[in-house]
Amino acid sequence: MKSDLHKVLHPIAGRPMLMHLLASLQELAPERTVVVVGSGREQLEKALAGRGIDIVVQDPQLGTGHAVQQAEAALAGFDGDVLILYGDVPFVSAATMRRLVDRLDGSDAPAAVVLGFRPDDPVAYGRVIADIGGRVVKMIEFKDASPEERAVTLCNSGLMAVRSRDLFALLGRVTNDNAAGEYYLPDIVMLAGADGRASAVIETAAEEVAGINSRAELAEQERAWQQRRRTQAMADGATLIEPETVWFSYDTKLGRDVTVEPNVWFGPGVTIEDGVTIHGFSHLEGAYVASGAEVGPYARLRPGAELGRKSKVGNFVEVKKARLGEGAKANHLTYLGDAEIGAGANIGAGTITCNYDGFFKYRTEIGEGAFIGSNSALVAPVKIGGGAIVGAGSVITGDVEPDALALGRGDQKAKSGWAAKFRAMMQARKKAG
Amino acid sequence: MKSDLHKVLHPIAGRPMLMHLLASLQELAPERTVVVVGSGREQLEKALAGRGIDIVVQDPQLGTGHAVQQAEAALAGFDGDVLILYGDVPFVSAATMRRLVDRLDGSDAPAAVVLGFRPDDPVAYGRVIADIGGRVVKMIEFKDASPEERAVTLCNSGLMAVRSRDLFALLGRVTNDNAAGEYYLPDIVMLAGADGRASAVIETAAEEVAGINSRAELAEQERAWQQRRRTQAMADGATLIEPETVWFSYDTKLGRDVTVEPNVWFGPGVTIEDGVTIHGFSHLEGAYVASGAEVGPYARLRPGAELGRKSKVGNFVEVKKARLGEGAKANHLTYLGDAEIGAGANIGAGTITCNYDGFFKYRTEIGEGAFIGSNSALVAPVKIGGGAIVGAGSVITGDVEPDALALGRGDQKAKSGWAAKFRAMMQARKKAG
Amino acid sequence: MKSDLHKVLHPIAGRPMLMHLLASLQELAPERTVVVVGSGREQLEKALAGRGIDIVVQDPQLGTGHAVQQAEAALAGFDGDVLILYGDVPFVSAATMRRLVDRLDGSDAPAAVVLGFRPDDPVAYGRVIADIGGRVVKMIEFKDASPEERAVTLCNSGLMAVRSRDLFALLGRVTNDNAAGEYYLPDIVMLAGADGRASAVIETAAEEVAGINSRAELAEQERAWQQRRRTQAMADGATLIEPETVWFSYDTKLGRDVTVEPNVWFGPGVTIEDGVTIHGFSHLEGAYVASGAEVGPYARLRPGAELGRKSKVGNFVEVKKARLGEGAKANHLTYLGDAEIGAGANIGAGTITCNYDGFFKYRTEIGEGAFIGSNSALVAPVKIGGGAIVGAGSVITGDVEPDALALGRGDQKAKSGWAAKFRAMMQARKKAG
Repeated sequence: MKSDLHKVLHPIAGRPMLMHLLASLQELAPERTVVVVGSGREQLEKALAGRGIDIVVQDPQLGTGHAVQQAEAALAGFDGDVLILYGDVPFVSAATMRRLVDRLDGSDAPAAVVLGFRPDDPVAYGRVIADIGGRVVKMIEFKDASPEERAVTLCNSGLMAVRSRDLFALLGRVTNDNAAGEYYLPDIVMLAGADGRASAVIETAAEEVAGINSRAELAEQERAWQQRRRTQAMADGATLIEPETVWFSYDTKLGRDVTVEPNVWFGPGVTIEDGVTIHGFSHLEGAYVASGAEVGPYARLRPGAELGRKSKVGNFVEVKKARLGEGAKANHLTYLGDAEIGAGANIGAGTITCNYDGFFKYRTEIGEGAFIGSNSALVAPVKIGGGAIVGAGSVITGDVEPDALALGRGDQKAKSGWAAKFRAMMQARKKAG
Repeated sequence: MKSDLHKVLHPIAGRPMLMHLLASLQELAPERTVVVVGSGREQLEKALAGRGIDIVVQDPQLGTGHAVQQAEAALAGFDGDVLILYGDVPFVSAATMRRLVDRLDGSDAPAAVVLGFRPDDPVAYGRVIADIGGRVVKMIEFKDASPEERAVTLCNSGLMAVRSRDLFALLGRVTNDNAAGEYYLPDIVMLAGADGRASAVIETAAEEVAGINSRAELAEQERAWQQRRRTQAMADGATLIEPETVWFSYDTKLGRDVTVEPNVWFGPGVTIEDGVTIHGFSHLEGAYVASGAEVGPYARLRPGAELGRKSKVGNFVEVKKARLGEGAKANHLTYLGDAEIGAGANIGAGTITCNYDGFFKYRTEIGEGAFIGSNSALVAPVKIGGGAIVGAGSVITGDVEPDALALGRGDQKAKSGWAAKFRAMMQARKKAG
Repeated sequence: MKSDLHKVLHPIAGRPMLMHLLASLQELAPERTVVVVGSGREQLEKALAGRGIDIVVQDPQLGTGHAVQQAEAALAGFDGDVLILYGDVPFVSAATMRRLVDRLDGSDAPAAVVLGFRPDDPVAYGRVIADIGGRVVKMIEFKDASPEERAVTLCNSGLMAVRSRDLFALLGRVTNDNAAGEYYLPDIVMLAGADGRASAVIETAAEEVAGINSRAELAEQERAWQQRRRTQAMADGATLIEPETVWFSYDTKLGRDVTVEPNVWFGPGVTIEDGVTIHGFSHLEGAYVASGAEVGPYARLRPGAELGRKSKVGNFVEVKKARLGEGAKANHLTYLGDAEIGAGANIGAGTITCNYDGFFKYRTEIGEGAFIGSNSALVAPVKIGGGAIVGAGSVITGDVEPDALALGRGDQKAKSGWAAKFRAMMQARKKAG
């Protein structure tokens, strides 16, 4: 990836790929989760903190079998099924995980269950040679495979389920007697077979086990994820005028009869209720938009933005940690940060809540039905009472009582003919060069 | 569609799909137009008001034949050709409509003319079995078709032309003696045949009769429409740097040597003259842009925006019901609403026309060659005379005479060392937590 | 192209197509470069000024051979290899150019070297009939070709390398004895052949010799160029969340671990260092962004914008000819033009540098660690000292000393109950209509 960020922490749909995998795994309620990491342990520890996940380090890195072996100590005392997943194969579904584990406990109790797939272009993958009943006859690396074996289209995804007691016993017998000098995980299938214990293979779609090894593949998986999500959004009753230009996050919630114009970005933590229109070029994250509200174009909703029913946030408006009451409007060129805006209030174009003094953040409260004249600066902490009016161009540093008019601006003065003289002077200067 | 909006009112290219169909129909100058609606009558009445269109309700809904029968009363006294169209099949061309009607009056006078098509995947469609001369031998629903009939690739679009006197006579004889208990329109072809009167089939491209039954299909038709429009725009002499990111409306007008950067949205009612450049991330609707003007990036032109020749509207600028004279400029962070800007005027960054007091809208007039200093608020109604200068940061509440200088701002005051003391205090407070 | 702009000056990736071709040619360090032009000589002269390129006019235009002949005088005294290229075939690589010239001087010294290609759909192209060793047997226009000749898939791109002394001698013998009455360049191959001197053909990929004859083809080549560049950017270690919505220019430089959200436009002259994040909807040209900086969403960086390490330019902010020091921030709704912003300075929302008086531009200098309160107008020329604070909503027309507080705004006044009375009055007026 040519990156300082650990591969499995590169995000897709606003969430590190590893977290997609762990979220699916969570549906199986695993007793223990162990992450084996080569380099970048600190990054993973930080990302996984507080989740009850053991992290073990594989150093040196001597193959997939060796990697799994590193989990042995962390699984001491655990006697159950072990599911082996890969952080860079993030979109294996919980259903597939369950099928792997269930098969392990199913008929004829296989020693291991491997997950196979049939890629469009199977060239470099290891093959799974299986009989018609799904019993594995042979696992073979591509480079070691005969022409007949290469003709088999069932490939090894690397994912596997094995009972813990079998897993580490078998791994202990795996050797690195091969060209790369590595301990290969699939070898345990052959070792169990030599003991007279068959393994089973189950199949899944190739898309599900696509691995991510470059930024180009990262972009491909992002696109595939987005396509699935867009299709789902439309099926659920949202109109996406140009679906390919709407980007969702893993947790975006979208109501019915929501219309999304082209070019809208939903970062993490966004909920949109029914009947909302999101105009183009809008950028939302951590925002809640209640039903019937209208957003954009060019609206930026940042974390903590809460838009009430039928409220409106228009063009070139940024909202952060601010709540707009029902029917409140901020239509143009405005910054609302750390603010509470009452129902029906009207925030004029160019209004700025001055919420920061370089050290702390302060709140602005605007009462119901208040009218903030255009180009006003509201210096927080400040309260504008309900029904109050702030004159255009005002700087408001003190509270305004309800139903009052507040002004904070200079008086208008004029100098007749001044502009004409200025122009003449400047034109002469320009001519002079 | 999972929508409260009637299916045929869902828009494509900024216009309800039904209106696309009616616009094409209009080219044939029909004597009468009847819309048969199941549910949602009120929505259609509202959408079609004032167009001289009869709306009749089909309740209960007993099949396509039954639907057409509901139009009988509305067509009382009409003795002519009836063209049967579908609101969710909106992109049938006027030429195809004409071919249907013309064929009805053509050689051998068929009883009905049906419109056939050959889809890529014909699986579920009813088939039209016809002889080599286009005479219909049989119309058959897919589920009732024999393997030989299913092998026929010509499918029934449902569109049809029939003489009015034939139509309702034949419909009166259609029965609902079938699995669904419905009255099928195609049955009239078989009934006419039984009378010894042949029907004809003409063919059209499958794209033209694509129906819209989901939001995904709505998005597909939108994309197909946009692709046709983009291709046309380029053929007409516009440069679209990335055509797939430019969205047109049904009525967008674009001149020659217009350059459109990626990500531009043309809502309804936009006209762009020759030689205009539209920079990226611009959002236009109801706007007129004269030749040589420059728009964006991030320009939002709303209805009533009129940009004169060689005028410029730049980034984060919103224009609504406002006219800019030749060569006038509003380059940055500005809101111009309900305004008249004279030729050559320069509107500084951050200028706001304060056009609304919470109850009414007021106009701002800026004379030719005026210079509005940055961050000014112009409180309408207000007139700035030609050649006048408004000092930066002014609030202007009264008219400014031509060639005058107007200022409306506080005087600058300073407190030496205050900031250093404040910083020390705040840092201490921050440290204290 | 339906354009007033000369075809070869239409840009791809921010550079006229002809300049792409000349840039590749430059890698061969040609002794002389001659451009033959039909109409639009002035446009080309302007575009090519100062590059040491001869421009000669072909008038009337009597075919490709005649066009090349026009260069004879400009090449007087030149005795070397001549490479014949086409301005509307801009993406021929330097490597391919070199192969053409090198082959000319290679084994068996061909009279001419023609560049062949095998298009997906070869219908209308002239064919190159060659033996297995790449020796040209015949060059034939498609319309004159026999069925057997048309079955040949090797087509003539028109590009050619010939020694100068051969070229003009052969061209002098070319006749216009054909249907179009034109002098065809490929005829020189046949003429040399008649002298017993064979010519050679070398092949290249069809993409490389794609010609541009319409705006649709222009858009296609733009897309192909962008796709190549996006793939390269990802391979070099940048994350493009949706690659197809990021547009590069011919000279964009991108560091490692740069993340680019969807919808970002890089105009000419942009350099992005390592670890920078560019949020969506950003528009950059002529800008330098140092490592760790954060840009956008909705940031517009114009020529001369220089963002220091870990600086931040946020939403609806325009920066032009302005440098931000390390860690400086301008997060919202700001215009910074002709300015120098010190390290760690904080520019509040809605700040405008008033850099223009209608005649000249002036500079604003803001010292290290200064804090500019929101909605301030800084009227240049003006200096804000290091550590100074400008109160929100101020108009600053005079210099502010370091560590001072400066205010320039009106005092706040209030009228109790005024808003309630105003509302009552306006509601009555509204009711009255």
